[in-house]
Amino acid sequence: MQIYGDQNSGNCLKVKYLADALGIEYEWCNVDVVEGGAKTDAFSRLNPFQQVPVVVLENGQVLAQSNAILIYLAHGTAWLPGDPYWQAKVNEWLFWEQYSHEPYIAVCRFHMFYLGKSKESREAWRVERGEAALDIMEKHLGQQPWLVGDQVSIADIALFAYTQVAHEGGFSLEHRPRINAWLQECRRLLDV
Amino acid sequence: MQIYGDQNSGNCLKVKYLADALGIEYEWCNVDVVEGGAKTDAFSRLNPFQQVPVVVLENGQVLAQSNAILIYLAHGTAWLPGDPYWQAKVNEWLFWEQYSHEPYIAVCRFHMFYLGKSKESREAWRVERGEAALDIMEKHLGQQPWLVGDQVSIADIALFAYTQVAHEGGFSLEHRPRINAWLQECRRLLDV
Repeated sequence: MQIYGDQNSGNCLKVKYLADALGIEYEWCNVDVVEGGAKTDAFSRLNPFQQVPVVVLENGQVLAQSNAILIYLAHGTAWLPGDPYWQAKVNEWLFWEQYSHEPYIAVCRFHMFYLGKSKESREAWRVERGEAALDIMEKHLGQQPWLVGDQVSIADIALFAYTQVAHEGGFSLEHRPRINAWLQECRRLLDV
Repeated sequence: MQIYGDQNSGNCLKVKYLADALGIEYEWCNVDVVEGGAKTDAFSRLNPFQQVPVVVLENGQVLAQSNAILIYLAHGTAWLPGDPYWQAKVNEWLFWEQYSHEPYIAVCRFHMFYLGKSKESREAWRVERGEAALDIMEKHLGQQPWLVGDQVSIADIALFAYTQVAHEGGFSLEHRPRINAWLQECRRLLDV
């Protein structure tokens, strides 16, 4: 398998983490998103959405969208429940991550970490929604050890990717002990 | 089944469209999102994400996130391919919709249609990304009749929901004949 991605992008790291956990061999093909590597003609032919990550499977089939790739790779493994209802509970977090977490946590990080801008120059509405997303996670992780049921799943990988670097976007985790404990368990389990 | 939702919300209509297409009986429980209906304590207990739609299944199990609900309801039907790779191609569009279409097309529509603001007062970056999303759809639908393969799927329902009302967010479809033809086929098939 080939993974096209940027090693600083949480969306790309999700795929790397799962591939490593599953022992899937892959070649990492670096795409520099800040330099426009996802917008070139060659890359657009691979992925018309012009986004990373992209994987090319052994048979040449191409898949895009980080969380769609996670679901595909996790199918039939312990990282994704087989029962449709519990799969749906995993999917809830995957969609929530892309709509209600990544656009705030990851975009503020992009603003500060990639573009070198100040914490104070973050957009207020993004900060507010990022804080709200972390509050939802903190509350949920106070009730159970993993995001779905009592077993680790790709929902944890998907949320781990950018939550672990939330501080690089100006978000503090100091007053969020449950998230910290969960991050530590994720790190241990993923060996990162 | 109960569907908690707002009849003006594309995210909620997705679930209604699929339930109707599959002949699933449901009770529609209206939630007025503009009036804060998704933020009440009672609703937060149902869905800690504080978003619509939510479905309550016959056995009392609760599911949130429109596209996670679509996948769950479509499981084992003609609306979702059984093959994992083709399921992943459907999922690509579902995640793309929530990340790269809804935040621009639906949020501009919210701005104009719900809040009554002018077309000119839309945020420029949202307009630009919304236009780019429609361009990607127009190009893709020039190559095939449905979003995934040669068969209609929940990817089409997910994208139909807000694309059909893109004009209410100030986006023109007049120069996008493929999207228009596809919308017409969706309307015919969904009987809406």
